[in-house]
Amino acid sequence: MIIDHIGIAVKSLENAAVKYHAGMGLKIEKPTIIKEHKVRMVMLPIGESKIELLEPTEKSSPISKFLDKRGEGVHHICFRVENIEKKIKALKKVGLEVLEEVSKSGYKGQKVVFLHPKSTNGVLIELVEEGIS
Amino acid sequence: MIIDHIGIAVKSLENAAVKYHAGMGLKIEKPTIIKEHKVRMVMLPIGESKIELLEPTEKSSPISKFLDKRGEGVHHICFRVENIEKKIKALKKVGLEVLEEVSKSGYKGQKVVFLHPKSTNGVLIELVEEGIS
Repeated sequence: MIIDHIGIAVKSLENAAVKYHAGMGLKIEKPTIIKEHKVRMVMLPIGESKIELLEPTEKSSPISKFLDKRGEGVHHICFRVENIEKKIKALKKVGLEVLEEVSKSGYKGQKVVFLHPKSTNGVLIELVEEGIS
Repeated sequence: MIIDHIGIAVKSLENAAVKYHAGMGLKIEKPTIIKEHKVRMVMLPIGESKIELLEPTEKSSPISKFLDKRGEGVHHICFRVENIEKKIKALKKVGLEVLEEVSKSGYKGQKVVFLHPKSTNGVLIELVEEGIS
């Protein structure tokens, strides 16, 4: 298991990219719009992980609601796991709740699931299944 | 450069450990008290990174203040860099502010510095210098 990425909610991808790309020195991929999540995102690889910057594309985007409530900051952490169903079983045994059923809505079509932050100490956790972790 | 660790503020290390250790399946190190930061912490290695759970040891702990204000959740992200002074220079060029000067207060005595979250899109970023990144 590894940290697949850290999702950061920002008002402007371009503004944030200056800091994480030019300032921190991270490489940057091409921004992509994910219509179903109403976000424009860009990945910045770092070691075996990535920083994911998320900008809302409309007011009804979950990222827009997050920004209104908390301001810019860490939105979620994504762990890459080998077998998502097996991991969910283990998590449910210790009382963790999934927000919704597993879907193939990862940005590369991978299987993903989100855990309820109330059951993970305030952290919105995403699990993604992608090859061997 | 890699993600050295993600720091998560929690009310109880033991409660959080059940989720991240037993549930998520991460290994867990021995908890340590860091007197100068007024926290009890435990590291859970994950790939090349670590999850750092932070519990306040007293009311005046910065973690206690964070919990009062925001509740449990991600407190900071730490990037491991090769040369901390060089990185700070590059960061200052794009307007990033350091919270204080570089000190050797990492939990293994490494050089560390924190960046002001106002200049890093709401994310409290720690830099740590530790060998080749």
